[in-house]
Amino acid sequence: MKAVQFREIGRSPEVVEVPDPEPGPGQVLLKVTAAGVCHSDFVVMQSPAELGIGLPLTLGHEGAGTVAALGAGVTGLEIGESVAVYGPWGCGTCPECAQGKENYCRRAAALGIRPPGLGAPGAIAEYLLVDAPRHLVPLDGLDPVRSVPLTDAGLTPYHAIKAALPRLVPGSTAVVIGAGGLGHVAIGLLRALSPARVIALDVSERKLALAESVGAHEAVPSDDRAVARVRELTGGFGAQAVFDFVGAPPTTAIATAVAATEADVAIVGIGGGAARVGFGEIAYDASVRSPYWGSRSELIEVLDLARAGALEVQVETFSLDEAPLAYRRMHAGDINGRAVIVPH
Amino acid sequence: MKAVQFREIGRSPEVVEVPDPEPGPGQVLLKVTAAGVCHSDFVVMQSPAELGIGLPLTLGHEGAGTVAALGAGVTGLEIGESVAVYGPWGCGTCPECAQGKENYCRRAAALGIRPPGLGAPGAIAEYLLVDAPRHLVPLDGLDPVRSVPLTDAGLTPYHAIKAALPRLVPGSTAVVIGAGGLGHVAIGLLRALSPARVIALDVSERKLALAESVGAHEAVPSDDRAVARVRELTGGFGAQAVFDFVGAPPTTAIATAVAATEADVAIVGIGGGAARVGFGEIAYDASVRSPYWGSRSELIEVLDLARAGALEVQVETFSLDEAPLAYRRMHAGDINGRAVIVPH
Amino acid sequence: MKAVQFREIGRSPEVVEVPDPEPGPGQVLLKVTAAGVCHSDFVVMQSPAELGIGLPLTLGHEGAGTVAALGAGVTGLEIGESVAVYGPWGCGTCPECAQGKENYCRRAAALGIRPPGLGAPGAIAEYLLVDAPRHLVPLDGLDPVRSVPLTDAGLTPYHAIKAALPRLVPGSTAVVIGAGGLGHVAIGLLRALSPARVIALDVSERKLALAESVGAHEAVPSDDRAVARVRELTGGFGAQAVFDFVGAPPTTAIATAVAATEADVAIVGIGGGAARVGFGEIAYDASVRSPYWGSRSELIEVLDLARAGALEVQVETFSLDEAPLAYRRMHAGDINGRAVIVPH
Amino acid sequence: MKAVQFREIGRSPEVVEVPDPEPGPGQVLLKVTAAGVCHSDFVVMQSPAELGIGLPLTLGHEGAGTVAALGAGVTGLEIGESVAVYGPWGCGTCPECAQGKENYCRRAAALGIRPPGLGAPGAIAEYLLVDAPRHLVPLDGLDPVRSVPLTDAGLTPYHAIKAALPRLVPGSTAVVIGAGGLGHVAIGLLRALSPARVIALDVSERKLALAESVGAHEAVPSDDRAVARVRELTGGFGAQAVFDFVGAPPTTAIATAVAATEADVAIVGIGGGAARVGFGEIAYDASVRSPYWGSRSELIEVLDLARAGALEVQVETFSLDEAPLAYRRMHAGDINGRAVIVPH
Repeated sequence: MKAVQFREIGRSPEVVEVPDPEPGPGQVLLKVTAAGVCHSDFVVMQSPAELGIGLPLTLGHEGAGTVAALGAGVTGLEIGESVAVYGPWGCGTCPECAQGKENYCRRAAALGIRPPGLGAPGAIAEYLLVDAPRHLVPLDGLDPVRSVPLTDAGLTPYHAIKAALPRLVPGSTAVVIGAGGLGHVAIGLLRALSPARVIALDVSERKLALAESVGAHEAVPSDDRAVARVRELTGGFGAQAVFDFVGAPPTTAIATAVAATEADVAIVGIGGGAARVGFGEIAYDASVRSPYWGSRSELIEVLDLARAGALEVQVETFSLDEAPLAYRRMHAGDINGRAVIVPH
Repeated sequence: MKAVQFREIGRSPEVVEVPDPEPGPGQVLLKVTAAGVCHSDFVVMQSPAELGIGLPLTLGHEGAGTVAALGAGVTGLEIGESVAVYGPWGCGTCPECAQGKENYCRRAAALGIRPPGLGAPGAIAEYLLVDAPRHLVPLDGLDPVRSVPLTDAGLTPYHAIKAALPRLVPGSTAVVIGAGGLGHVAIGLLRALSPARVIALDVSERKLALAESVGAHEAVPSDDRAVARVRELTGGFGAQAVFDFVGAPPTTAIATAVAATEADVAIVGIGGGAARVGFGEIAYDASVRSPYWGSRSELIEVLDLARAGALEVQVETFSLDEAPLAYRRMHAGDINGRAVIVPH
Repeated sequence: MKAVQFREIGRSPEVVEVPDPEPGPGQVLLKVTAAGVCHSDFVVMQSPAELGIGLPLTLGHEGAGTVAALGAGVTGLEIGESVAVYGPWGCGTCPECAQGKENYCRRAAALGIRPPGLGAPGAIAEYLLVDAPRHLVPLDGLDPVRSVPLTDAGLTPYHAIKAALPRLVPGSTAVVIGAGGLGHVAIGLLRALSPARVIALDVSERKLALAESVGAHEAVPSDDRAVARVRELTGGFGAQAVFDFVGAPPTTAIATAVAATEADVAIVGIGGGAARVGFGEIAYDASVRSPYWGSRSELIEVLDLARAGALEVQVETFSLDEAPLAYRRMHAGDINGRAVIVPH
Repeated sequence: MKAVQFREIGRSPEVVEVPDPEPGPGQVLLKVTAAGVCHSDFVVMQSPAELGIGLPLTLGHEGAGTVAALGAGVTGLEIGESVAVYGPWGCGTCPECAQGKENYCRRAAALGIRPPGLGAPGAIAEYLLVDAPRHLVPLDGLDPVRSVPLTDAGLTPYHAIKAALPRLVPGSTAVVIGAGGLGHVAIGLLRALSPARVIALDVSERKLALAESVGAHEAVPSDDRAVARVRELTGGFGAQAVFDFVGAPPTTAIATAVAATEADVAIVGIGGGAARVGFGEIAYDASVRSPYWGSRSELIEVLDLARAGALEVQVETFSLDEAPLAYRRMHAGDINGRAVIVPH
């Protein structure tokens, strides 16, 4: 079958022919209907060894497909059923996996378990092998092309936001830093899930306009007056939740400075910044964390929210052969919304 | 192999010879090291059809064993490894199972999935077939004979108590009604998990003595003065948590009457009673629920607690051939603690 | 000053002249700008003694006003400031009051502390004496006439709903039984606070139309097919939250029957019904409670939500002299939305 | 009356004569029975102006006393009643105060409200003026001398720990860094409130011995092997909760490094350090916060815990005239446990 692989550091992703995968006992083979292209793939392609990823690597950690074949012993799935793939595979039995938090599996590293597209062969291919049926969620009427970004670009902000919901009572404020791929989904999620006022920060006027179009109450330039502006908009008190989808030194500083007492601050972006927490550095009991992806039940909830019409993601589609072009255009910042590969 | 089966309504459990089970893909075969005998088996034997249980039925929903054989595709387990069985099997993929709450699987009934000993062949046999490795928890040094009751008699009260812990702050009171098999474990759990004062209620003086020996601060006869006594012991305010392990009309009435404002009341016993909730019936915002068994991560936690030495269960052991005797003696109320079958 | 009092069982509320109140140390005198008329006043007028209420009683437990005079030692309020009154007054120092849950004050009964209009002189008068500044919330731009019902008809459903929010994830369902005064506010609250699908039940077609107009996704006649209809709409699983604003035997039976596993069921109405909780009576771990009014911070949140434009209450206004008429018309079911007395 | 004041930067606390305070409306006058001496007083005496504290300042933010006189309008207290003082006074009406979290009052700074001993006249005096009865908690049989440290040295760790309790399930680990005044109380609190294994870290062997004597399961030298040791003790996974009572750069680095995925990390000490939170800096979703003191209901709970015998604090007593000596000896590190001034 055709697959898009990253084969060597310094080279671009390329379309190659690889053997057709076959499902062993307990596994499921999907015919891929859609696969998302994600900025974080560039991080992987810069230093795969550091991340424990061997080459060649079939790319694509956002995947959807129809069930093509079932390994021995697999029940509860129909051939042809349309499903999305839960990407952060874990061992399935450790204390975290026993709650469906496979993104925090405590044994994955030791057991060599890796997500598809981030170590295991990914979804940007004609077929995808899924290690266990528990990593599939029925799409149940959702369009795979428009939904596939939800498995990462939807699930990651959803997970970050869900823990903050108890703080987001009426009268509260949520700040979203970075209104790009994940950030603009976060704004829509916050509006669907909470009564909080949403303030979006970005350096780009175009993204601030996008932020307003998806529901931000305020769009504020992310410059050196941003902190003062957020304080002013919140009566001096700051925001009850802050989501930093950039995570670079300037934004983690803003995230820290706009946090109210007892705020929840999530540093989601991996831009090399870090928030400082201690006496005099941040408001009392503002808690700062760095989350990663999401849990199995959270993916079910994200797809349920999409099914209710409360989540829209802009996508631009490419064929499998055009996948290298999609990566080039994404690298150039030239994608409207999310790039999705449609192999068939 | 030998197995203890309930074969016909009106007959007692009997030792029979059945074919040796073999693990299919994804399944695990255990050589049983210990299997618990539970009062609820008598409920099953009274009306199996109503409960959707076909005959003959190999009994035993509390099981522990060593891994004897792995079905195709099973990884992460070693032959000979000592494990406990998580009993309330679910589908593994629905929203509840995706959080490990397989006791509340929303698809088990439709898919015909049943716990071992409650529909599927149970643990009171030489070997036990387990449908998936996720239903096993390593015993990791724990004695299987002393630990096997924890998979139900420990897990069920643990699950009931865990949801109540936020109410059990210093100065609060927990009432345990029925200091028998589950109730006396509940008392130990409450002492290990919370700073609450524990009041035990029972009609039996022997069980009240047991309650005190396992940590109850007060042991109160469960008679018509019980409510007044609990009110008196709590400054008139009532208890922040109530666990009724009897669940009969007199006890559900007591459970309701001793609940403080915002109390958590769990009706765990299946004695035919029901609490009434509405204006004038119970303190404001006291919430009443009827829980069932527990989740996968809760079983891990119960075994961790036992490993720390914080949970002791009294057991009396029987061979497989003596299992019918164990049932007779349990029916007669003549077991000290929990009866455990040791097949080998 | 003029006040509307209930003076004798069997007689209607009447406009009388009473001495002008004066604020003692720590108290605040309000010039009443708006006072709500509530169905529960009829319950009070039927059996005041049973409820511990002495006569004559100035009615009105929903109040708003402008600060007219401050007792000795009161700070932090300006004369003329527009405020709403938090009604469920408590002692201010017990464990519940120390968290602002004065609705659950454990000492109020012993100390003889009663809410205004439910023991203390109420708000349907020219002036209202408030016992402490902590029982006032600034209206901060909100119209007192349109906002005063929020102090009970808004706060009560808000409190009931807030505890259920963790269950109301995407894909979940909330059932509101009774789309009247509190119920129709509850529907709006659920839409503003959660992504749940809202199903409204009522016996009146007019109220079902109101339910849909304020945001219910489904409006279902509250008859003997209601349970089957809710089950059908939820794929057989039931609702994750149920709010019964009627609380009569037929509705508590419905509330119990439509509850999903782990649902939160609140019996808010005081119609003489009670839910039964125990094995076989209701889904596992569905918890049933009977809440009362709300906390201090919850009232702040309700008013913040109104300020954000997310809460609309229909009101019909009456002068103080017309208050007896308002009671008559409410008793006849002839009020559109909520009746509000505007004394000045 | 006599009072111990800090009058000028560079001078030591001194015993002076000041006018007897008299309670205004709503205030309460206490005859001081005990007042704690706290390390943080040295921070105050170094830079009072920066902290917004005017001089002269009567010291003592831990206070207990008997009610000596009631201001106009005060009810619910008896002359002679023995009480503890809740120190972090707030406005009483903002959203935080409405939940009893006066330590996080959002208006205190603007209104010039300061805790006793930290701006308002403190407890190291013959009499103490308390601004409102809600800031008093009945001691109800507790010895004031042994209990007064609980109002800060007990309440502060209690507040830090309480938010972490949901993570401290069986099998979890809590790390306490710094086994001094607050740290050794934290160890006792953790043992009383949770089943977690407690690992204490300190640079002093004497304090490690104290840690073990109050219940730490492990006592580990806080050196450059400490992180490896904690990882080893936790199977490589780290601790679910970390409490840093030092808060200096070396300890915040340890706190960050030993945190497990989803851990709760509280930087309580004000030693000039800060934890760094971001991708690659700390385990996923480990949240770091810097808490301050505690809430009103938490003080009630701490005193309830002491009344149950679950909290012991070592104290050394001094007369009012000896207070300057107590400060000198504390500065020299020469106090066994906590220094308490007994004025009468």
